[in-house]
Amino acid sequence: MNPLRVAVVGATGAVGREMWRRIEGSAMPVAEIRAYASSRSEGTTLSFRGSPVPCLPLDEAHFAPADLVLASAGSAVSRLWSPRFAAAGAVVIDNSSAFRRDPDVPLVVPEINPETLRPGPGIVANPNCSTIQMVVALAPLHRRWGLAGVRVATYQSVSGAGGRAMRELEEGSRVFLEDGEETPRAFSHPIAFNVLPRIGPADETGESTEERKMRDETRRILDLPDLPVSAFCARVPVFRGHSEAVWAWFRETPDVEEARAALGEAGVVVQDDPDASGFPLPREAAGDDRVFVGRVRRDPAEPRGLVLWVVADNLLKGAAANAWQIAEVLWQRGWLAGEKQA
Amino acid sequence: MNPLRVAVVGATGAVGREMWRRIEGSAMPVAEIRAYASSRSEGTTLSFRGSPVPCLPLDEAHFAPADLVLASAGSAVSRLWSPRFAAAGAVVIDNSSAFRRDPDVPLVVPEINPETLRPGPGIVANPNCSTIQMVVALAPLHRRWGLAGVRVATYQSVSGAGGRAMRELEEGSRVFLEDGEETPRAFSHPIAFNVLPRIGPADETGESTEERKMRDETRRILDLPDLPVSAFCARVPVFRGHSEAVWAWFRETPDVEEARAALGEAGVVVQDDPDASGFPLPREAAGDDRVFVGRVRRDPAEPRGLVLWVVADNLLKGAAANAWQIAEVLWQRGWLAGEKQA
Repeated sequence: MNPLRVAVVGATGAVGREMWRRIEGSAMPVAEIRAYASSRSEGTTLSFRGSPVPCLPLDEAHFAPADLVLASAGSAVSRLWSPRFAAAGAVVIDNSSAFRRDPDVPLVVPEINPETLRPGPGIVANPNCSTIQMVVALAPLHRRWGLAGVRVATYQSVSGAGGRAMRELEEGSRVFLEDGEETPRAFSHPIAFNVLPRIGPADETGESTEERKMRDETRRILDLPDLPVSAFCARVPVFRGHSEAVWAWFRETPDVEEARAALGEAGVVVQDDPDASGFPLPREAAGDDRVFVGRVRRDPAEPRGLVLWVVADNLLKGAAANAWQIAEVLWQRGWLAGEKQA
Repeated sequence: MNPLRVAVVGATGAVGREMWRRIEGSAMPVAEIRAYASSRSEGTTLSFRGSPVPCLPLDEAHFAPADLVLASAGSAVSRLWSPRFAAAGAVVIDNSSAFRRDPDVPLVVPEINPETLRPGPGIVANPNCSTIQMVVALAPLHRRWGLAGVRVATYQSVSGAGGRAMRELEEGSRVFLEDGEETPRAFSHPIAFNVLPRIGPADETGESTEERKMRDETRRILDLPDLPVSAFCARVPVFRGHSEAVWAWFRETPDVEEARAALGEAGVVVQDDPDASGFPLPREAAGDDRVFVGRVRRDPAEPRGLVLWVVADNLLKGAAANAWQIAEVLWQRGWLAGEKQA
């Protein structure tokens, strides 16, 4: 196969850097790699397999066709540039929310719906971080008992809001511990030692964008277009790793032991010992590509329901790792070869 | 009325100190006040209305009858001593979990079930912190539409685990920010920048003691003995103030605007503006006796359901303020007068 022309859009962001590392560490032959970043990163030089790569602004002057584009620079940038890259022959794996509701764009979690991927240039949407880890845990249970509905309360880390939010938690925590005055910028309120009970603006029903994403995307990924999904999304003072308390109910009566077994067989890490060390923690999941599940039990309010605790690194399985898994599937199928776009 | 003989058990704890302040600031005539505390507080002297009060260990040598006892020193101490005080003529308002499931002991949230209080000596149980704030928010909705079930995910602050836990969060946060090694003692795992998804040990069904308390106590306080209640209780790195994402469903279809109005009429602070400042935060609720509710909306997964966010100071409405409200009701009814125990 021909070596690929690759571009990373948002290459200096928390997710972009992870994407970069994965390309660099992979066996894929790369003919050329471009690092696009915002003007704040002007002058920054990245390194790729020993060679320096300058960060470029993404504009008309610096746009160039590519075979594979990994985009994680927000919806506004994606809306403008991902179709351009696709029109010029690229497969664009897009981590923004810009195309996730577009019925012509596959929304992919590779262990669940890889069949929705198609050959040839175009955009593939990477789902929302909170959604990915939840559907990875729900899919094996759905296959067994038929998912009938979900309620979920999230405990989301600040890294989902970017590097600036991470620095704000660090700075805010120091200032709080010294009785100083915090000035929130990345968030609407101080995040240090606090819980912010809304992620994104609310619509006229009171539901936030993050809560709506969890319903819309879960329905698409699991191909259950009418699935009831009711999310409550909150930000907690954790740097990295999203946690979720999930209530799921099914068409048939689930069994707790079988649920643990099904999760394990699906590659989920089940941490569910009754002793004190027996549950997933966001700080321990940070840096790991896998999804962790614990505290699996019957829902005492619903005979066909289960309760579970789902944790994953939102920058990895919730973003860069899932995007890279998509790239690997495409590569294995021969759909990323440079000649395809000829 | 005769001046009261008062005792505070656990007087140097976070909740005990708040109880002490309330007695001191009240109009109740106090003939004598005793401060009982563990051996760690030996030598500590408190002040009451200008007079020094030495902390005493609670043992045979220091036990003395009282008219009103406020106990917040844990279940083991309460199980031993609260019945002793009651047998000697006291009304004991007990903040431990020791008597909450005893059908002969009223479990009281004064704005909901004051009718369960009775005259004469005996124990009155103060409910669990997480339960109190939730039922205060649910009771006015229940009165209107008939509560049919509850799911709740908690975001509980460390102060619920005592002063040692608060110091562990403070110390752990400093150490984490300086890349040091934390040694958790109050908790099983580091709490700084983490979420601990279990509070108390789990039973054979996997449910934790805290989760079970929320069901048992909600049923008793609302007098709904079969109410389905499914809780997921987690500890977050917040010093003070518990938060809860609550899904409640009803026998009749609720209305969001009416729900907000009913909550406001019941004395709950409704913070539910669509702008960024429009929701309750644990850091802002800390130090306030009231219960705060926001993000009230229809449950998209249940036509007869509502979703709400409930926040309160777990040391105040969740403990000392509720206990003190009980004392005030008893006092207003003339059931605390010194002569009653004659």
